[in-house]
Amino acid sequence: GRRIVRVNDVQLTRVEGAYRIVGVDISARALLRRLGPRSLAGRIVGRQIIDWSDVQYLASAAPVQLKVSYDRLADLNPVDLARIVDALSFRESAEIVAALDEETAAETLEEVSDERVADLLEGMDQERAADILEEMTPAAAADALEDLDDEVAEQLLARMEPEEAADVQAHLEYDEDSVGRIMTRDLVRVPADGNVGDALAAIRSMEEVPDPLLAVYVVAPDDPDILIGLVRLRTLLLADHATPLADVLDEDLPSVSAEDRAESAARVLAEYNLLAVPVLDENRRLLGIVTVDDALAVLLPEIWQRRARAFG
Amino acid sequence: GRRIVRVNDVQLTRVEGAYRIVGVDISARALLRRLGPRSLAGRIVGRQIIDWSDVQYLASAAPVQLKVSYDRLADLNPVDLARIVDALSFRESAEIVAALDEETAAETLEEVSDERVADLLEGMDQERAADILEEMTPAAAADALEDLDDEVAEQLLARMEPEEAADVQAHLEYDEDSVGRIMTRDLVRVPADGNVGDALAAIRSMEEVPDPLLAVYVVAPDDPDILIGLVRLRTLLLADHATPLADVLDEDLPSVSAEDRAESAARVLAEYNLLAVPVLDENRRLLGIVTVDDALAVLLPEIWQRRARAFG
Repeated sequence: GRRIVRVNDVQLTRVEGAYRIVGVDISARALLRRLGPRSLAGRIVGRQIIDWSDVQYLASAAPVQLKVSYDRLADLNPVDLARIVDALSFRESAEIVAALDEETAAETLEEVSDERVADLLEGMDQERAADILEEMTPAAAADALEDLDDEVAEQLLARMEPEEAADVQAHLEYDEDSVGRIMTRDLVRVPADGNVGDALAAIRSMEEVPDPLLAVYVVAPDDPDILIGLVRLRTLLLADHATPLADVLDEDLPSVSAEDRAESAARVLAEYNLLAVPVLDENRRLLGIVTVDDALAVLLPEIWQRRARAFG
Repeated sequence: GRRIVRVNDVQLTRVEGAYRIVGVDISARALLRRLGPRSLAGRIVGRQIIDWSDVQYLASAAPVQLKVSYDRLADLNPVDLARIVDALSFRESAEIVAALDEETAAETLEEVSDERVADLLEGMDQERAADILEEMTPAAAADALEDLDDEVAEQLLARMEPEEAADVQAHLEYDEDSVGRIMTRDLVRVPADGNVGDALAAIRSMEEVPDPLLAVYVVAPDDPDILIGLVRLRTLLLADHATPLADVLDEDLPSVSAEDRAESAARVLAEYNLLAVPVLDENRRLLGIVTVDDALAVLLPEIWQRRARAFG
């Protein structure tokens, strides 16, 4: 059902007859974590996030009041939702998260400050908390669990599906500012004796396709942990299906180690203009990849601090 | 033909019977611009860059000497080639660049320090310099030309193909630390009334496919400068060809302005986990995009300083 949510710290701007959220007017503490107020002004292209009919000024109260149904909130970009969750009181933010489906809640919590995430997870039903953690990236779930009471963290891990819990625990084995903590195991492996059509089929047959999907990783036909090279999505799209992967793969790949500092992965990506870098263990076996979008956040302290704990 | 190039500042490591370049032992000044010496050690996966037969120690001379034919040098990653060009004397680096084909020379110069690029361009035949500038990204060519004598820059621009020269001059209209200087106009536009198959056909029919290719930009059927949304490559690959673009496009796009500081584009990309962000003019018409790999370098002063001039 609909309710009134008072969001007196959301800045709206009028675009073509509708209002959009363009920024959050928040406390000095939150200010440190976010972009300048100008940063989003007029920067959203495309469809209307919140219709004019959902928004109204109430002159008697706070500068701006926003009347919006909870199901419309879920239409917001999770990043914008996270700004709102961070800016509101705990009680208000808990109400908003409670109204979101698990997937949207997970995407939103990935972008919310760690302290707020810990409070929200501790304040909700444990079964729901575990379900939301399962939907988060293992890296984000690991960061969230580290900020909880050890006992609560154990309980939530125990309630998660064993596979997802194991993924999260694997991340927790690495230092919090390490490559191991920001890498993903979520990648496409294809044997080196296949062709472009096989690689496309491998992607399409996955239950959940990695996101972002930038390349497929070409591995030894007899051992999926031996990395031979990669084929970028761009190449798969342009090449004939019958082309052997061996003819189009890029073998000359820098790599990083899971124990390296997260920032060093960002540096290798930048230096070599890469979109992702493989992570190899001491036996040079493929553990995962670091994608450029995750690496970028490491270089921006205020974004990194919101997602993980203090860095460097 | 073959020659001996003395590269006494290249560190080699032996991997499976062949030597690889793993770092460059360079002056303190160059040291500031590069990764630590450890950064590449053992980090190259895959094929051998330089065969054992091309490498030999000469005990009587510098710690390591490298005998390698110029055509084998072109097999190196342009980033590694750039390190060598930066580390050698001007004369030696000019000889190396002279031995490269125009495309490899362009890719290499994009990664070389600005001062060295200026010296190299001024020292070579103007026709060849213009040909190399044409192969560089307009952003890199603009940075290079700004470091030359105005008169020489004018001469080189005049020798370039009119279309490439115009692209470079468009970049020079923006401040050197602005979004306009790092954006690319090289993107795929498809009309909003097409389907996924049309988008794929549009990519395949391009003479030069943008690199990196991350998405196609969906524009108004009657005006290619009106941005409606984008469809990621990932989606194009997974969707049925008959799917209308309208059904799979992402309309909820943050954007930046060409006059913004380059760093603000990096922040928007990081904040919203994007791989590219559209650049709109004051009439909200699509000028170009900033891709995450170019934005990443902006946040790393030593890489940025090597590619552009001092930033911030």
